[in-house]
Amino acid sequence: MNIAKKINSTYIEKTKILIAAFDQTAVERDKRGGTAKKERDLIRESGLLALIIPTEFGGYGENWKTIFRITREFARVDGSIAHIFGYHFLCLVSTQLFGSQRQKEFLYKETAEKNLFWGNAYNPHDGRLMIKQADEAWLLQGEKSFCSGATDSDRLLISAKNVESNQTVLAVIPTGRKGVAAKGDWDGFGQRQTDSGTVRFQDVQLKETEILKHHLQYPDSVFPTIRTHIAQMILVHVLLGMAEGALEEAKHYTKHSSRAWPTSDAAEAAHDPYTVRQYGDLYVQLNASAALAEKAVDALQAAWEKEWSLTEQERGECSIAIATAKVMTARTALEVTNRIFDVMGAKSVSAKYRFDRYWRNIRTLTLHDPIEYKLRDIGDFVLNDQLPEITPYS
Amino acid sequence: MNIAKKINSTYIEKTKILIAAFDQTAVERDKRGGTAKKERDLIRESGLLALIIPTEFGGYGENWKTIFRITREFARVDGSIAHIFGYHFLCLVSTQLFGSQRQKEFLYKETAEKNLFWGNAYNPHDGRLMIKQADEAWLLQGEKSFCSGATDSDRLLISAKNVESNQTVLAVIPTGRKGVAAKGDWDGFGQRQTDSGTVRFQDVQLKETEILKHHLQYPDSVFPTIRTHIAQMILVHVLLGMAEGALEEAKHYTKHSSRAWPTSDAAEAAHDPYTVRQYGDLYVQLNASAALAEKAVDALQAAWEKEWSLTEQERGECSIAIATAKVMTARTALEVTNRIFDVMGAKSVSAKYRFDRYWRNIRTLTLHDPIEYKLRDIGDFVLNDQLPEITPYS
Amino acid sequence: MNIAKKINSTYIEKTKILIAAFDQTAVERDKRGGTAKKERDLIRESGLLALIIPTEFGGYGENWKTIFRITREFARVDGSIAHIFGYHFLCLVSTQLFGSQRQKEFLYKETAEKNLFWGNAYNPHDGRLMIKQADEAWLLQGEKSFCSGATDSDRLLISAKNVESNQTVLAVIPTGRKGVAAKGDWDGFGQRQTDSGTVRFQDVQLKETEILKHHLQYPDSVFPTIRTHIAQMILVHVLLGMAEGALEEAKHYTKHSSRAWPTSDAAEAAHDPYTVRQYGDLYVQLNASAALAEKAVDALQAAWEKEWSLTEQERGECSIAIATAKVMTARTALEVTNRIFDVMGAKSVSAKYRFDRYWRNIRTLTLHDPIEYKLRDIGDFVLNDQLPEITPYS
Amino acid sequence: MNIAKKINSTYIEKTKILIAAFDQTAVERDKRGGTAKKERDLIRESGLLALIIPTEFGGYGENWKTIFRITREFARVDGSIAHIFGYHFLCLVSTQLFGSQRQKEFLYKETAEKNLFWGNAYNPHDGRLMIKQADEAWLLQGEKSFCSGATDSDRLLISAKNVESNQTVLAVIPTGRKGVAAKGDWDGFGQRQTDSGTVRFQDVQLKETEILKHHLQYPDSVFPTIRTHIAQMILVHVLLGMAEGALEEAKHYTKHSSRAWPTSDAAEAAHDPYTVRQYGDLYVQLNASAALAEKAVDALQAAWEKEWSLTEQERGECSIAIATAKVMTARTALEVTNRIFDVMGAKSVSAKYRFDRYWRNIRTLTLHDPIEYKLRDIGDFVLNDQLPEITPYS
Repeated sequence: MNIAKKINSTYIEKTKILIAAFDQTAVERDKRGGTAKKERDLIRESGLLALIIPTEFGGYGENWKTIFRITREFARVDGSIAHIFGYHFLCLVSTQLFGSQRQKEFLYKETAEKNLFWGNAYNPHDGRLMIKQADEAWLLQGEKSFCSGATDSDRLLISAKNVESNQTVLAVIPTGRKGVAAKGDWDGFGQRQTDSGTVRFQDVQLKETEILKHHLQYPDSVFPTIRTHIAQMILVHVLLGMAEGALEEAKHYTKHSSRAWPTSDAAEAAHDPYTVRQYGDLYVQLNASAALAEKAVDALQAAWEKEWSLTEQERGECSIAIATAKVMTARTALEVTNRIFDVMGAKSVSAKYRFDRYWRNIRTLTLHDPIEYKLRDIGDFVLNDQLPEITPYS
Repeated sequence: MNIAKKINSTYIEKTKILIAAFDQTAVERDKRGGTAKKERDLIRESGLLALIIPTEFGGYGENWKTIFRITREFARVDGSIAHIFGYHFLCLVSTQLFGSQRQKEFLYKETAEKNLFWGNAYNPHDGRLMIKQADEAWLLQGEKSFCSGATDSDRLLISAKNVESNQTVLAVIPTGRKGVAAKGDWDGFGQRQTDSGTVRFQDVQLKETEILKHHLQYPDSVFPTIRTHIAQMILVHVLLGMAEGALEEAKHYTKHSSRAWPTSDAAEAAHDPYTVRQYGDLYVQLNASAALAEKAVDALQAAWEKEWSLTEQERGECSIAIATAKVMTARTALEVTNRIFDVMGAKSVSAKYRFDRYWRNIRTLTLHDPIEYKLRDIGDFVLNDQLPEITPYS
Repeated sequence: MNIAKKINSTYIEKTKILIAAFDQTAVERDKRGGTAKKERDLIRESGLLALIIPTEFGGYGENWKTIFRITREFARVDGSIAHIFGYHFLCLVSTQLFGSQRQKEFLYKETAEKNLFWGNAYNPHDGRLMIKQADEAWLLQGEKSFCSGATDSDRLLISAKNVESNQTVLAVIPTGRKGVAAKGDWDGFGQRQTDSGTVRFQDVQLKETEILKHHLQYPDSVFPTIRTHIAQMILVHVLLGMAEGALEEAKHYTKHSSRAWPTSDAAEAAHDPYTVRQYGDLYVQLNASAALAEKAVDALQAAWEKEWSLTEQERGECSIAIATAKVMTARTALEVTNRIFDVMGAKSVSAKYRFDRYWRNIRTLTLHDPIEYKLRDIGDFVLNDQLPEITPYS
Repeated sequence: MNIAKKINSTYIEKTKILIAAFDQTAVERDKRGGTAKKERDLIRESGLLALIIPTEFGGYGENWKTIFRITREFARVDGSIAHIFGYHFLCLVSTQLFGSQRQKEFLYKETAEKNLFWGNAYNPHDGRLMIKQADEAWLLQGEKSFCSGATDSDRLLISAKNVESNQTVLAVIPTGRKGVAAKGDWDGFGQRQTDSGTVRFQDVQLKETEILKHHLQYPDSVFPTIRTHIAQMILVHVLLGMAEGALEEAKHYTKHSSRAWPTSDAAEAAHDPYTVRQYGDLYVQLNASAALAEKAVDALQAAWEKEWSLTEQERGECSIAIATAKVMTARTALEVTNRIFDVMGAKSVSAKYRFDRYWRNIRTLTLHDPIEYKLRDIGDFVLNDQLPEITPYS
């Protein structure tokens, strides 16, 4: 009997159940903000947190295609959940990108076994978190902002600046470690349940084994830097899913609640020539985004499988494929979440629907890093055969 | 000595004071929603509610250019206040469009003397409010939705369906009349303090003198139908002012809070080539909208002054000028309130700024009537020399 | 030894040789217009006209993916050649869609053996060509416009109206048949060597065996109607290839001929931030078009392989996939061929380059059938689950 | 009796006659290219070349509003004629900007009296024309490119580089001066009768009185630099007029030659909902451009009247008003000349109409200087209160 297939159908089923659950409370939770504790626990219980973990370590052995597909599906009903779900894998696989075989094995097994949820304290744009070596241990001091998914997480991926060498040090610790406190200060108008606030570290002690430094043995390899690619692809799929969800909800509204405009020749809103045309237009853009995202997933999966033998050229081309998908998707998502109102009409602004959450979520998430610089990177590649500079965003 | 000029400088000064007051609490009030009681009273006290009333009736004798200019200025800091301020005049001058000389004189004088604030219960799209003649009086029964500015108003402009003749009857009553109750159910995600909710009329009695029917004596004149034009021009100026306010606030943020992107050649965000370019782009669109709005104001003022001699052709051309300004302004306002975030960056989504209110307001207001049907009207005029059908929206 | 592979590498080689030949004279031939006789003969000699013909009938047994890929590659240097090359296959496989097994076998074998070039006299939009049955034979009388590739063709696919039944009759005849004359009146400003002019038929006699009517035995099957899909996909790939060719040529010009603008911070045009950004933007759109085209090819190939068992639903979904690719590609191609001038500069308008031919070609070809009605079809599918009406364009 | 008015009605009449004449041959002349000798002579005979010349010097004493209005009207039927007509004034008034009162008086009188046509050899972007002082006279040597209107002109405005001082020297000479030769090498695909080719100067002798150097006495004044503004405004009005002409011609075609699309609900193309909508859309953009152009004309006229007292701030703000009109108009003109084909249909590409000339003309003229740098200038003004750098383009 084919075990793989069985697992597969299992998590497709689980995904559906989760989606139904998220959907029921998404509007209410957008209003409330804060931590989606109950939903996070449902994910824990589902076992899906182990999707990318190889079967030998107790996971499902799935690839990025699966991770992004589910992320996108979650995003159709709940962008925040999709975001932290995706970021869980980003943090988890950082073990593989930066850690030793032993660390990876230990953390993968532990995560699969205990259904650990990983959170992010990595933000490379914020240099306020410092680390120093003290005898056998290390000591963290300072703050990190934009720590999506840190609250209520079980493990935390951390980047900090070594006060002596001024170099970036990566580490993984249990979130419950003494001295770690999420400030709960995320107050963005969108992605309201991503807990993307500040985490404070006060005299937090780390063991040597919690430091990820295996990648330092391969200073010439670009493999660890595809963390950036994974992060970007999570964002692409959250954006794409949210835009798809918005269009789906708009369709339902147009068909069941909108009225044809008095001077329209059509009897029903759903047959108004201008409304129909707009759905056509938005669909074309969404499909184009999806098609580019699919190509980017293939590129990323290939890069991932090359591991330490990944070349700079390959990494750069993958980066361009992802940036291309990102630009198209970000533009499309903004367009869709703006224009759905045109095809729904004046009453669709009612608070009971909270349809504005789609735009608020998309607008928030599309600011993660500027689209203009994606265009510059792509242009430099196209025109000057220049690969994007390796940064935490490209 | 020139009295007119003196008055003029007086209300410019008053406008400035009001703007400063509105500005201080706009963010807080967007959060709160509901009725801007205090701000409405400030407007009452300012005397500005009499701006359009001829000096002979105790007003300032100002024209539409002034009304729209102040509406636009208010909108820069507060779209809701601007909206109900503009609509006050729309309701007030309906007396002139539909009422007798006597009604006009009485209501203008009373309004100027007592600083009465007018509210709207006219929505032609909602046919649930019925009226019938009962002996000496008339009786109202039913509901009206989207009654902007009705709450806390002193006078109410009403349109109702005559249960016998099935024709529309217009009337003006004191808002405090027995049986009138604003339900306070406006829950749109934007324009949150416009009180654009439902008003319920339960056995409300009207006197014959409260019915506006003078226009029925001129069944061939299109003059009363420019009420539509006035309404559209208020919306145009609220949109324009809000978009200008958004860009102004974005500029301040970019210069004082944004950081240049790490891979930018610029040291400061305000000198980033892509940021600079985007400001240029948005400014072009805003200026184009303003230029079209100015031309439309001239057209409307001219139509207004023609009064009962206004021809269908003149009315139609005025309608096209207004529709043209509306299309450009609506598109621009959506574009501006979306893209300001790109030139501010990721931290601008914080709840402390509530910068999303600009988009929420614009998106709500641009749904009043569909842009697509404005385009059709314009196209039919351009291509087929066809004047727009006379409706409450065109 | 793998024969298939050998053939494969053979025609890739041949394609390259042809492209190099077309490229050398493309500018000159755009100027000249008329028939690309020499280039058509080169294609004949290459054997590529038999690509789609099954190996059992002497062809290469290739699929649509190959046909469209080569069409797109030809289009990069010469849109006219690509167009008539693609249309050759459209006409040729009409035998398979409408003819009997015997007709197909005969015509496929003959085409493969003699390297016959097929031309089009099918235009469903032009009802002036009449046919009537006369004893053993049929008689054609009248004209057909937009007969791309008819001039210098060896076989002609014809659609004509039966004067008695008023139904459409399809037929294949040698172009040299007595009474057939291409008027050579194609004078479009683009696609100048497609010979898309009028063919006159004066008392042209047809044999019964030249009539294609096999499909009439399957009145319920939609298979023959995917001729439309094939035609649309040829257009998509000609557009896509031309746009790619335009961008390629622009790149070369920007790098080697453009000067940086005096007030630019960049020393060279190729490093100007706005120029770089525009290349990025155009690349995103081109890649999105290509990604959608690839998905549409897969859909079409699948539909093709279903043959007579193809369902209406499958046909409709394939139609939507193609329309989606068409809309995106048409828009992109117009955008690219307009904006390449912005990134080349004022001197790029010189007649010596004839860079305007890209726009002229794209603008001509994108008018084949209106993009607006593609959007309507897509919108009706998305919103109302309605399959596109089966027409010669959808 | 009001002389001014009489003159006024005279040239309006003359303009109409000229337009009718140009219109009849515009298509043919676009095909032919070269010099519009006959049309230039008609303009000479009309006396319109003296429009801007003060009445005291024998001219009409008209202002820029009139010049640009007529330029725009000419452009509706013939962009090349409009271009060289506008440039005539640009060259002529350079006397006023750079020359002494005496030079101005002499050249204005001579121009009005003899109906002299001025041509351009000023291109600041081309540094190959050198001048040196030789005893009493000056000597020109070298070439100038993009010399619009130089061929068949009577006077030539020249800028050359002083071989000793490396500074720019301005001069006016009769075009017939020995050693001056237009190469007739203009081969742009648009604006084909502007003669924007190269002029060669071989040992051309200039008198001291032909040198314009009066402005050197006012090194601090920015007045002479508004030559740039005048040049830009000519381009804006040529673009605007051409776009208006294109839409006008498209309308006629749609109404009289287009067929409704088979699946359209409309019986005639002119009532197709999508066609109507597109006309509306293009009209909005055209009107916005026109409104901005009108504001820019006012700004320029005011700057012109300030003469030597014009401040840098005033000049800068005028520059921004013009750049704003330019960006909007350039974009609109490209959009209009592209999209008219969508509302005309496939047969509108026929060579007999040469409708592509609108796009070719617009595309050529919009490359004069890059729109992207206009956006940067505007953005820097809006965001950083920075006036545009004073250059020959801003």
